[in-house]
Amino acid sequence: MNYENMTLHTDKYQINMMYAHWVQGSHNDQAIFEVFFRKLPFGNGYAVFAGLERVVDYIRNIRFGDEEIAFLREQEEGYKEEFLEELREYRFTGQLDAVPEGTIVFANEPLLRITARIFEAQLIETAILNFVNFQTLIATKASRIKQVAGDDGLLEFGTRRAQEADASVWGARAAYIAGFHATSNLRAGMLFGIPTKGTHAHAWVQGHDTEEEAFRKYAEVLPDQVTLLVDTYDTLRSGVPNAIRIGKMLEKQGKRMNGIRLDSGDLAYLSQEARRMLDEAGLHYVGIVASNDLDESLIFSLKGQGAKIDVWGVGTQLITSGDQPSLGGVYKLVAREKDGEMVPVIKISGNPEKVTTPGRKDVYRIINRETGIAEGDYLTLVEEGPLNTEEPLRLFDPVHHYIQKVIQRFDAIPLLTGIFQDGELVYEVPSLEEVRRYHREQLALFWPQVLRKTNPAEYRVNLSDTAWELKMALIAKYMA
Amino acid sequence: MNYENMTLHTDKYQINMMYAHWVQGSHNDQAIFEVFFRKLPFGNGYAVFAGLERVVDYIRNIRFGDEEIAFLREQEEGYKEEFLEELREYRFTGQLDAVPEGTIVFANEPLLRITARIFEAQLIETAILNFVNFQTLIATKASRIKQVAGDDGLLEFGTRRAQEADASVWGARAAYIAGFHATSNLRAGMLFGIPTKGTHAHAWVQGHDTEEEAFRKYAEVLPDQVTLLVDTYDTLRSGVPNAIRIGKMLEKQGKRMNGIRLDSGDLAYLSQEARRMLDEAGLHYVGIVASNDLDESLIFSLKGQGAKIDVWGVGTQLITSGDQPSLGGVYKLVAREKDGEMVPVIKISGNPEKVTTPGRKDVYRIINRETGIAEGDYLTLVEEGPLNTEEPLRLFDPVHHYIQKVIQRFDAIPLLTGIFQDGELVYEVPSLEEVRRYHREQLALFWPQVLRKTNPAEYRVNLSDTAWELKMALIAKYMA
Repeated sequence: MNYENMTLHTDKYQINMMYAHWVQGSHNDQAIFEVFFRKLPFGNGYAVFAGLERVVDYIRNIRFGDEEIAFLREQEEGYKEEFLEELREYRFTGQLDAVPEGTIVFANEPLLRITARIFEAQLIETAILNFVNFQTLIATKASRIKQVAGDDGLLEFGTRRAQEADASVWGARAAYIAGFHATSNLRAGMLFGIPTKGTHAHAWVQGHDTEEEAFRKYAEVLPDQVTLLVDTYDTLRSGVPNAIRIGKMLEKQGKRMNGIRLDSGDLAYLSQEARRMLDEAGLHYVGIVASNDLDESLIFSLKGQGAKIDVWGVGTQLITSGDQPSLGGVYKLVAREKDGEMVPVIKISGNPEKVTTPGRKDVYRIINRETGIAEGDYLTLVEEGPLNTEEPLRLFDPVHHYIQKVIQRFDAIPLLTGIFQDGELVYEVPSLEEVRRYHREQLALFWPQVLRKTNPAEYRVNLSDTAWELKMALIAKYMA
Repeated sequence: MNYENMTLHTDKYQINMMYAHWVQGSHNDQAIFEVFFRKLPFGNGYAVFAGLERVVDYIRNIRFGDEEIAFLREQEEGYKEEFLEELREYRFTGQLDAVPEGTIVFANEPLLRITARIFEAQLIETAILNFVNFQTLIATKASRIKQVAGDDGLLEFGTRRAQEADASVWGARAAYIAGFHATSNLRAGMLFGIPTKGTHAHAWVQGHDTEEEAFRKYAEVLPDQVTLLVDTYDTLRSGVPNAIRIGKMLEKQGKRMNGIRLDSGDLAYLSQEARRMLDEAGLHYVGIVASNDLDESLIFSLKGQGAKIDVWGVGTQLITSGDQPSLGGVYKLVAREKDGEMVPVIKISGNPEKVTTPGRKDVYRIINRETGIAEGDYLTLVEEGPLNTEEPLRLFDPVHHYIQKVIQRFDAIPLLTGIFQDGELVYEVPSLEEVRRYHREQLALFWPQVLRKTNPAEYRVNLSDTAWELKMALIAKYMA
């Protein structure tokens, strides 16, 4: 079973369209696709882009091997052998531009831009969306949690409830980009260099005659890594008192217990009582870790109640993005080669928000030079050339046109960067620590109003006059 | 990057507990764990078990290689070298019993039962839960959709919105077990032998000067596989009329168009109008495929409105289990070796539903000989021996004790079957078609009231007197 080869990780209609292009001789025509989503998840004011490293790895490794060709040969479509031979030669020879991982992004702006033969561009749609939709979703969810948790510790604990294995490890990585501190998943730690954390489960306590014995034996084996789970029998009557005994035992050895973990019950009340009991025993330095179906709303509520929790273990709700488990990113054709020229294309829809913006586009982040803060994003057609920052810039909302402002002194940071050129990787893939640092820097460019969890201020993505006029012209043409 | 080796796809605390057992010399003690979930998802009356094939493959391939050992050596815990050498020797030498994939299952009954050295049993918890929770969740969601769709076609279309790559392919497989007919994901088709389907996307239409030209060219290339997407510009004014022209063109070649696909707008109205237009053109045989964020509730509503839809393409809501994206299956210690004897263990909790049922258990499905229908499931302690079907059996609810019935003439089908024995695979893993057929047979054992989507009748999981008395005794002991 050739499980590792991701070449056929695509929808069948991609192969059928490639085949139809090949038969009609249009497979070498250039096409431009852009990836974007139409709506921010969770009612959040921003999203955190992730998934690019996985996309790069995937594109470099596309190969139709014997097993893939044999499988396609058996399909009811009856593909011609010459087409299958053409697939064997498939290599990505096009151009990919993308925003770096960790970038703060918004709806209706290109996150990836693919310029390639239609034959190549069509195949990769499905996998790119699969990776980018999930990883961006989880990074965004993790960022919401981070906004609420502030400087508290954040641990990703979700593998057992994740949607299969890839979701566990790539989700742990997305959470780390957005500011989580560690994961419980060792494979994610090994693959990506994320710090890993974990001590013991209820089974360890059940596996001994008494809770105290279980705690003591654990502390004897790993005296520098002692975080004790205190809710196997009764948190306040048994778990915390036993943990305190171990803390005092460790003090006699010149060691310090790391923490206790609460995994059920009323976390606000239990954490306050446990803190009081620990403090009264002189164990002020022992931290309290809490877990149990936590998300940003529960953490916010617990903090508001004065819960004494230092570290949050977040599982199910983060790794599955419980309140919205999918992001609707799409991969849309914006221009195609016709008679040797590139022409912009549009998709009309009865739903106005589904009408695409035609043409190959760049996206700039407009930074006010006075404040150093982002005023909005600005889409131009590539053919307009680089944005002139010496002239005042009029930003207008592409739907509610009367909403506009003129900005005088600004910097324009292009968000898209070259990843593949002529099929060659021209991007130095940053380390995960660099991505995480870049993400922190990104956050500093926005007003807190944009970043807050509830009812954030709207940050606008604006169209250049030229891009807007092209869109209006194509709509008029197709409605006629 | 050693991506394929799943050995470290586990939580760090498993390794720490294994280490602590090894240091204290208890790592060879036998332990018994059972996997179960506490609550059926979606308010459904049953769940469809899936994930076993993946578990079998995972267990057989656990190997701590050089890369895994090197990674563990760097951890802050400072594991001893002898422990790392012990890990190198890790092979699963224990026993695994499980219900077959496709089985109808319920809350609070063992789905898998692991009997092994604690050293071995602890490692595999996380991955087993990761696989079984997700695949069972998706199979159950797909089964709800199947209950509503009846004999209509069901296509799984979700890869682009799935939670990363593994979720796409294992989710497609779970949907197929529960009665879906095909998937769009070619890799899932290749890996598991699921039929694959797909024709063309909006980009194909946008890539031509007119919609009609796009349709005609597609039909010229694949005349036997023509399902045309009719909503790129205007479904009823452009898409359907153009599709009808192609249908008539194919008729002249002695061919028949398969269908049209609706992917946006008012699916009830559009399908009725499209059906009328197709019929008036004499194309009664052309089917209508619908997609666009469908789930069982929308399909039920559309059918109630008289929508003329023959095939349902279901994506996001199925593959992410949109309304409940996680299943809370757990892996709980039920017995452990102490001084050479196996003793049952319990986990107490302030939440009554979280108190575990101690002891190594069997689970029987009680079939009424008169009706051939299942009356309830029945848990016994293994030590009770096989269930005597010659005596009347009293079934009582373990929480609401007064709810009971006595059944006279019945068959008792054991649900757990041997998978690994002394580490050897003793189970003939069935083909996917066999699993799918077995699942259909399973459904026939239940009253429709249990299977219906909304407010299903409760099917009870009962405890034997012996199992119930053991649980009460252990609760009393720990509360004292």
